[in-house]
Amino acid sequence: MAKLPVSPLARPLPEMPPLAGVRLATAEAGIRYKGRADVLLAEFAEGTTVAGVFTKNLCPGAPVTYCREALQGGVARGLVVNAGNANVFNGVAGMRAVETTARAAAQTLGTTADQIFLASTGVIGEPLPAHKIVAVMDELQGRLAADGFAQAAGAIMTTDTFAKGATRRAKIGGVEVTINGIAKGSGMIAPDMATMLAFIFTDAAIPAQAMQAMLAKGVEHSFNCITIDSDTSTSDTVLLFATGQAGNKPVDDAAHLADFRRALHEVLHELALLVVRDGEGAQKLVTITVEGAVSHASAKRIGLAIANSPLVKTAIAGEDANWGRIVMAVGKAGEPADRDRLGVAVGGVWMAQNGGVVPGYDETPVVAHMKGGEIEITVDIGLGDGHATVWTCDLTHGYIDINGSYRS
Amino acid sequence: MAKLPVSPLARPLPEMPPLAGVRLATAEAGIRYKGRADVLLAEFAEGTTVAGVFTKNLCPGAPVTYCREALQGGVARGLVVNAGNANVFNGVAGMRAVETTARAAAQTLGTTADQIFLASTGVIGEPLPAHKIVAVMDELQGRLAADGFAQAAGAIMTTDTFAKGATRRAKIGGVEVTINGIAKGSGMIAPDMATMLAFIFTDAAIPAQAMQAMLAKGVEHSFNCITIDSDTSTSDTVLLFATGQAGNKPVDDAAHLADFRRALHEVLHELALLVVRDGEGAQKLVTITVEGAVSHASAKRIGLAIANSPLVKTAIAGEDANWGRIVMAVGKAGEPADRDRLGVAVGGVWMAQNGGVVPGYDETPVVAHMKGGEIEITVDIGLGDGHATVWTCDLTHGYIDINGSYRS
Repeated sequence: MAKLPVSPLARPLPEMPPLAGVRLATAEAGIRYKGRADVLLAEFAEGTTVAGVFTKNLCPGAPVTYCREALQGGVARGLVVNAGNANVFNGVAGMRAVETTARAAAQTLGTTADQIFLASTGVIGEPLPAHKIVAVMDELQGRLAADGFAQAAGAIMTTDTFAKGATRRAKIGGVEVTINGIAKGSGMIAPDMATMLAFIFTDAAIPAQAMQAMLAKGVEHSFNCITIDSDTSTSDTVLLFATGQAGNKPVDDAAHLADFRRALHEVLHELALLVVRDGEGAQKLVTITVEGAVSHASAKRIGLAIANSPLVKTAIAGEDANWGRIVMAVGKAGEPADRDRLGVAVGGVWMAQNGGVVPGYDETPVVAHMKGGEIEITVDIGLGDGHATVWTCDLTHGYIDINGSYRS
Repeated sequence: MAKLPVSPLARPLPEMPPLAGVRLATAEAGIRYKGRADVLLAEFAEGTTVAGVFTKNLCPGAPVTYCREALQGGVARGLVVNAGNANVFNGVAGMRAVETTARAAAQTLGTTADQIFLASTGVIGEPLPAHKIVAVMDELQGRLAADGFAQAAGAIMTTDTFAKGATRRAKIGGVEVTINGIAKGSGMIAPDMATMLAFIFTDAAIPAQAMQAMLAKGVEHSFNCITIDSDTSTSDTVLLFATGQAGNKPVDDAAHLADFRRALHEVLHELALLVVRDGEGAQKLVTITVEGAVSHASAKRIGLAIANSPLVKTAIAGEDANWGRIVMAVGKAGEPADRDRLGVAVGGVWMAQNGGVVPGYDETPVVAHMKGGEIEITVDIGLGDGHATVWTCDLTHGYIDINGSYRS
């Protein structure tokens, strides 16, 4: 397919510093793409702990099934990611491809297959030619280096139009640690989980169990609050690796880890929004805040009903502040709502309140807001204290172009 | 907005014969559209019974709230429908517009307002100028005639590109009765309910309670099995009026009414499919049959997950038999499914079975099928006996064009 134009909402890849205990390499295995890196190998220092959150799709890819099992051990020495083939719905051949890849990586890194993590992204239902990954393993090993995060972010892309990364520093017990994250994803994006793949690396020392809890909570408020097209991928994977090389004490204590948690959540949030910014065909980033619902969970469900409504999303693409469609979406969410208490604001201007148009409201600032690249919608349900924010993008001709022609 | 081209899936309006006890008239009230009829008045003979099914959207329009109440009486003498303004989310002004219209119609037809039924379709959140409807009431009365079904079908259209009607004959206790139905709808179409408006008329004599049960069941298998964009309208209304003029005995007995039920369900099914055929931007009518689910309800939920998937719908628009996306949609439905038992057929050809591609399957007939206007997808879940069929259309540039520019 023709190369897609870079999203108008793209952000430059930040400088991601090397992390003690992480070495990265990429190579061209030619799985589907030619003339670009399509395989990533990461090597982790001994003692690296790992946490993971995966798709809730009931027909997951073979790598997801494999990772869920590997995660039981709680330790990781390597990660292999390929782009171009998702290794989904390949039956026994899918599991064999996973085992072949894991065994080859384990041999290369001098460890056992159960400490290797895998992810694949791309076409569904075509056998993954694992031999092509095996064939570049030596080349990958020879290239392992500490400063490869930018290349890693590029190697895992499929329909992505820009590489995605985020970085933060935090202190644990006075010791400075670093978190780098990379992600890919632009279609088949909806909770749960709202990305294809994201990998977070840190030099902090954190027990696996504490990490799992922090990651799950962080994903709930980031990747699980974004939607591009309501479709849940079969491959969604978020993995967090902590090498323990920064020298902090590996204490499992909420107060001790507070600053790390803050930084981790910022990385997850930033990566999640980058995925929305690269939503297939996206021209506008849409932030939807729901207030006054009967609970936070109810607010989130209402927010996602709005964010998934094709009629709302096409109206935004048309720069039409169509609050009638927003009201429709609130009503279809099936959550407690009272037509005659509803309020809708766009760009901070309340267009409707208490179930009707605000008399004499001035459309001028709303029209101007709708022409921008970042749209803010606030809905007041008027019933309680539940609130939530979710993110999506508009639905444009670009989405149809991409998905009507690309077999993914 | 520019007039939309007629859907390539359109069907000609059938000849709908006059029905004893029903007189119809249309007029140009100029509510939003100019130069076309936008109001329908129907007059029913004394003794006409009525049944109704309405949107489950929790922010319904004022006419829906009004009709739910009027339905308690079980009898109808009149129906007023306007196109161009949905009278939704207008607060107290919305209820006042409803009352004004009902009172005027009641006076015109010599009855009371609680025997008048109302429906409105069009823009949300703009006050309905009921005075414009009142102004044409005398003109409507003067034009009431028995043969106005075709004009009635035209007067209730909004973004519809063709008028929709269906007709059937049935026997009740040896007496022949006739059923005519008209419908409108092409966007904001999803269960429940899957149409904007449908009105069914019969000269049969049927107790209101028996009619309500038959209508609810019929809607469940017709309008509630179609989806265009997953968005649930605030105005969806199906009303069934029975004038009792055909002379059959008004018996409430399942066997006695079997043939009428068959004919009614055929009318509902035909109207529902006409709505899908006029789906905004639709180029293909898609029939999705799910077999082998753990229950019929589960099969229907899986079918609707496939039918609502933007990735499946854009693939169909691109004439790509992308069964990987169908598998994804099965998995995201959250219903019992086993990746390794799944089968997917397109146009009757099994592409995937038992969780993988059918070895050496010939894509040629599938490619040919995808180029046609009517697409058949069958999914075998492989777990039980539950089955269901749902209908949708593809997602094309036309949908974006219509909804990115039209404020509805």
